[in-house]
Parts: sequence; C-alpha cells; structure tokens
Amino acid sequence: MSDTLPERTLSGAAYSIAELLEGNDVVLMLDQLRLPNEERYIPLRTCQQMADAIRSMVVRGAPALGIAAAYGMVLAARTGMPLDQAAALLKATRPTAVHVASVVDQMGSIAAGLSGEQLVRRLAAWARQLHQQDVANNRRLGKFGAERLGSVRVVLTHCNAGALATGGYGSALGVIRAAREAGGEVRVLADETRPYLQGARLTAWELAKDGIPVEVITDNSAGWFFSRGEIDAVVVGADRIAANGDVANKIGTYSVACLARMHEVPFFVAAACDTIDMACASGEHVPIEQRAAREVTHIADCRMVPDGVQARYAGFDVTPARLVTAIFTERGVVEPVGPETIRRVVAAGPPPVAR
Amino acid sequence: MSDTLPERTLSGAAYSIAELLEGNDVVLMLDQLRLPNEERYIPLRTCQQMADAIRSMVVRGAPALGIAAAYGMVLAARTGMPLDQAAALLKATRPTAVHVASVVDQMGSIAAGLSGEQLVRRLAAWARQLHQQDVANNRRLGKFGAERLGSVRVVLTHCNAGALATGGYGSALGVIRAAREAGGEVRVLADETRPYLQGARLTAWELAKDGIPVEVITDNSAGWFFSRGEIDAVVVGADRIAANGDVANKIGTYSVACLARMHEVPFFVAAACDTIDMACASGEHVPIEQRAAREVTHIADCRMVPDGVQARYAGFDVTPARLVTAIFTERGVVEPVGPETIRRVVAAGPPPVAR
Repeated sequence: MSDTLPERTLSGAAYSIAELLEGNDVVLMLDQLRLPNEERYIPLRTCQQMADAIRSMVVRGAPALGIAAAYGMVLAARTGMPLDQAAALLKATRPTAVHVASVVDQMGSIAAGLSGEQLVRRLAAWARQLHQQDVANNRRLGKFGAERLGSVRVVLTHCNAGALATGGYGSALGVIRAAREAGGEVRVLADETRPYLQGARLTAWELAKDGIPVEVITDNSAGWFFSRGEIDAVVVGADRIAANGDVANKIGTYSVACLARMHEVPFFVAAACDTIDMACASGEHVPIEQRAAREVTHIADCRMVPDGVQARYAGFDVTPARLVTAIFTERGVVEPVGPETIRRVVAAGPPPVAR
Repeated sequence: MSDTLPERTLSGAAYSIAELLEGNDVVLMLDQLRLPNEERYIPLRTCQQMADAIRSMVVRGAPALGIAAAYGMVLAARTGMPLDQAAALLKATRPTAVHVASVVDQMGSIAAGLSGEQLVRRLAAWARQLHQQDVANNRRLGKFGAERLGSVRVVLTHCNAGALATGGYGSALGVIRAAREAGGEVRVLADETRPYLQGARLTAWELAKDGIPVEVITDNSAGWFFSRGEIDAVVVGADRIAANGDVANKIGTYSVACLARMHEVPFFVAAACDTIDMACASGEHVPIEQRAAREVTHIADCRMVPDGVQARYAGFDVTPARLVTAIFTERGVVEPVGPETIRRVVAAGPPPVAR
C-alpha cells in the first residue's frame, strides 16, 4: 500500500482500531501486527485493501472485523466496486466471527435503490453509527459484567477482547475497565495466546496504557494458577454465540473453560448481542477457521518446527453452554446460559437509548 | 568457549545428548538450543562450563541433567576443582529435577579417599555407567509402557521426554518408540510447549528423525483435540516424583492432566525409578524453579510483551497422583498411583540385569 498520508494517532480515541476519514475515501487503520512495539496507522483506500488487512490480521477481533467490513463496503461504494462483489470478498476473509457476514448483509439491504454519492453517504453514516453503537454496547455490558463480577481480585482472560478487538472500550476488557472505573481493585492475568500472542502483545498493551495491572502468562500455565487459587474468575469475548449458548472464541478458550470448571471458578463471556447467531442452532454449526500451519511452525520467519513436520492449527474452538457461567450483554446478564435465556435476551431488543 | 576440536556427530548414537571423550577431559555436548535448525556439538572442559550449559539449557530434561552433572563432576576432578565446590555449583543450576542433586551426592560418596588419576577414572567409569544404565532403563520402561498402552492410535505428549532429555531412547518417547518397534501404528501430537518450544523443536525433531508420525499443536489447542476424541492417551515424563505419587514436570503438564481427566483419557507418566524422591513426601515439597520473565516476554530478542509489563513463569508444575493413571518404570507399571504402590516399586530394587 503506497500512500503519502501522514501517519498519526487517531483523534479522540488513543487506540481506536480505525477511522473513516471525512471524505469517505480513506480508512486509517491501526496496524495491530506491529503492536506492542510500534503504534502505526495505515491508510486503506479500497475494499480489496481492507480485505487484505483483515486476512493478514492487521485488524482482528469479531466486533472490530464487523466495523472494518462496514468501512470496506463504504470504500467499495466510493471506488465503484459492485457491492455484491465487495460483500463476497469480505465474507471470504474470516468465517468464524458472525459479524462480517451480518454487517455486509445488512449494508446490502440498505444499499438497495441507492447509487453514487447518496449511496456512499448512506453507507458511511451507517458504518460510523455501527462503530459508535459498538462502543456504547461495550460500556453497557461492561457495567453489567462488573456488577456481576463483584469484588474479585484476579481475572484471567484469553486472547484480546479489548478496545482493540471492538469499536472501542472492549467487551471482556470493557468489564475490567468498568470494574476499575467503579473503584474495584481487579488485576488481570493475560494468557499470551499462541500463535499470534494477542494476549501478550495486545491485551497487555491496552491495559498497561490504561494503568490497569496486568501480567502475562504462558497459555500452559493457566492450570497451575487455577490450582493455587490465584484466579477468581475468567472473562473472555466471543466470535459467535449459537442459539443454544455455545460460544465460539479464540483457540484455547475451551481449555480455559474446562480448567475453570475443574477448579470451580466462574467462567464469563462478554459480548454484545450482535455476536449471537440465532441461525446457528449449536456450536457444531459454527464454521471453524483453519489457519496456515506456518503461523505455528515459524516465529518471525525462523523455523521452530523441523522441516517436514506439520502443525495443525484451528483458529477457534467451541465452549459448550454448560461450561459458561453467564454471558454479559448490553441488554443484561444471561444466566444460566441456554436456549431459553438466549432467546429471551435476543427478543428483548436493543436498549431504549443507543448511547 | 574457544576450542579447536572438530565439530562432529557422536559415534554410535545419532543424537546422544553428550559423550565423555576417552581422555576424560572433554565432554562433547549437543547444543539443544540450536535445534531443530542446526545439529552442533560443543566441547566442555570444565565443571563451570558444564554448569553454564545446564543453566542456559544447552542440555535439559531431568535424566539428561543428571548425566550432564555426572560428567561435570568428572571434569571437576580432572581439572583439580574441589568436588564439594563442584557439587554446590551443579546443584544450584536447576532445582526441580531430582537427578542433579542425587547424582552429585552419590559421586561425592564414591570419591571418598580417592585422588588424582584414580579419582578421575573411578568417577568417569561411574558416570559412563549411569549414562548406559539410563538408556537400558528407558528401553525396559518403554516396553512396559507400550504393553500397557495397547493399540492406541494417537498419543499427546508435552515438552520433550525423549532421547534428548535422557541418556538416550527417551522415557515418554521411549514408550512411543517401543510401541512402534512392537509393530504399533501410534502417532504423536506434540504440544509445542512454550516458552522454550521443546515440543516443537525437540520432540518433533527426534521423532521425525526416527520416521515416527508427529504433528505439533499449540499448547492451547489440546482441549479442543480432546473434545473431538482425537487423543487416546497422554504420555509425559517427570522431573521428580514424590513419595505419594505426585509428579513434578514441565509447566503445562498439570493443565493437560486436568483436560485428560475431564475427557476420560488415560494420563501416563514414564520415568525411571531414579526420578522418585522418597525424601519428598508430596508435590508441595518439590522446589519449583522460577525462571526469568524475559523467556516469556521476548522471542529471539524481540519484545512481545509491552515495556513495563511483567510475565510470571514457573518452569514446572505439579500433577497430583489422583490425576495420574499409571507410572511406567523400568521395574514395571505403577498402577494405581499412590504412596503404597510407589513404596513397593522403590523397595523392589533394580532389575536383575543392568543391560
């Protein structure tokens, strides 16, 4: 991507994942692959560039992917790319999170009958509203989650379900932020989360930036910390929640849920209701992205696994509803988790005031 | 270490961890930090060099550390270093494995009343015998383990308890080798084992070298493979086994044991009887080595965790006896695992023929 735009920090949000600039022709996006060592925003001008950024994990995290896809649709409209083509391109990037497909389909409906500048302006307004709404949702669910957490001291989280994975504020880390804002003393243990190290690189970065105490642990240490009573609760995000309450999230989430159960520690999921896919009856129906073995076999171009030996690497796993203590949403706390309570929270509709 | 010895592959064992050369003045040691990309042997001429090699993980794995310490004592005798000083130096390197202290203490007793060339020759003969005995033990326990495993298809292992962690042949991987030698079709899933990646670098390397099918998985994937029924049994090694059957082993072993139990998959430990420490009543009494946070926060000198954020990293954890299905030793299979059965196997004494 050759470009002459000056690099800068986004206005108004020190680490917002992306901003659609005023002319609706450039998205400035934080390059998460360079964190924590470099805070760099790259300009994207086409839907193809957005799709490449999503696939290569410049941006990741289910709600953030939805917002990125929405901005990608705006860029498509702005550059005259047919929207059905843009939709197909974006949907093919990463299949597990429900947000990309859902956002792209909604924007397809909105676009019906519109064209030219009117189309661009309408889609851009919708995308910006989606972004703002996601932040508002996270603030609400964060509050509900913090109340439910009570006065726990140490929360384990896996991967990054923070400001960097959403429109801002974060889902799982939004709960932590809300707990701290309410005067709580909660500290965070962050699984490093191989192979992309989202916990080590991203969760640690954004919590440290906010002055929230965080320590990084290897994924394989979690059991040992549980056994020593050093973890009071687990809070993670979600890429897709099935109608029965099964939760698809970053690979390793299921192991953490098993360990939490064995040690009688509550396991919470924090996710806005747009993460719930009522068309998906259970976790078995969630498409699980298989990523390239090279992401495991190599670190920074250095081979860690001998030549000829393969790695197997699913990007996500499914935690069955029975292992989930509660789900924090912007419409309240779903507890216990099952088809009935999921149906009820979806039927409740959005909260009366959007922000 | 400046030296002019030609680098070479050890005679008679394609990847023996170390060899004490004939003059008893040089140990050629495989540098495991360079695997899998480079197979390089470095010469060690003093006990201090041996201690440095142990501390920096040129050699690792509990039985291998015992053998390395034995050779270190020979080098001390050869260079005129007081043996009590050598013993203290070696014991301080890595505290969790029982082998270093045990070997060094035994050699102290043997040395009593000896000096000069007689002392060197006596210690060298004892050290070489220890090395050979360990290989013989692994072959015996491997056979017992393979019989107990039966016709399982897929074994998960954690870290490296292979030829590279022992005198040769391996404990956990010795069981795999014995199963293959007996005509079994067993395949291996190897946890990559952060932060040193002993599974990715070492287990994969030595199994691939022997033509045994192996795939590497991230540590956080194990739960997902269990849940899909893709793991039939777990076999790991041990750094120290307490008198009640609790097992100290590489960090992450406890998490795997929990997951195995939740999914009703047998969890086996393979270790020669010199791993059992009858002076250690239970796992709580095993000293757990805390290693430098930098081993987690950095990969190949590149910072993965933001500046100012700490990592917590214990090198080992303890799996309680109740989660261990059986222990494979050179004196037979300990099953069920508890103080009674442990006492019995220790009391049985060594098998009649040493090799």
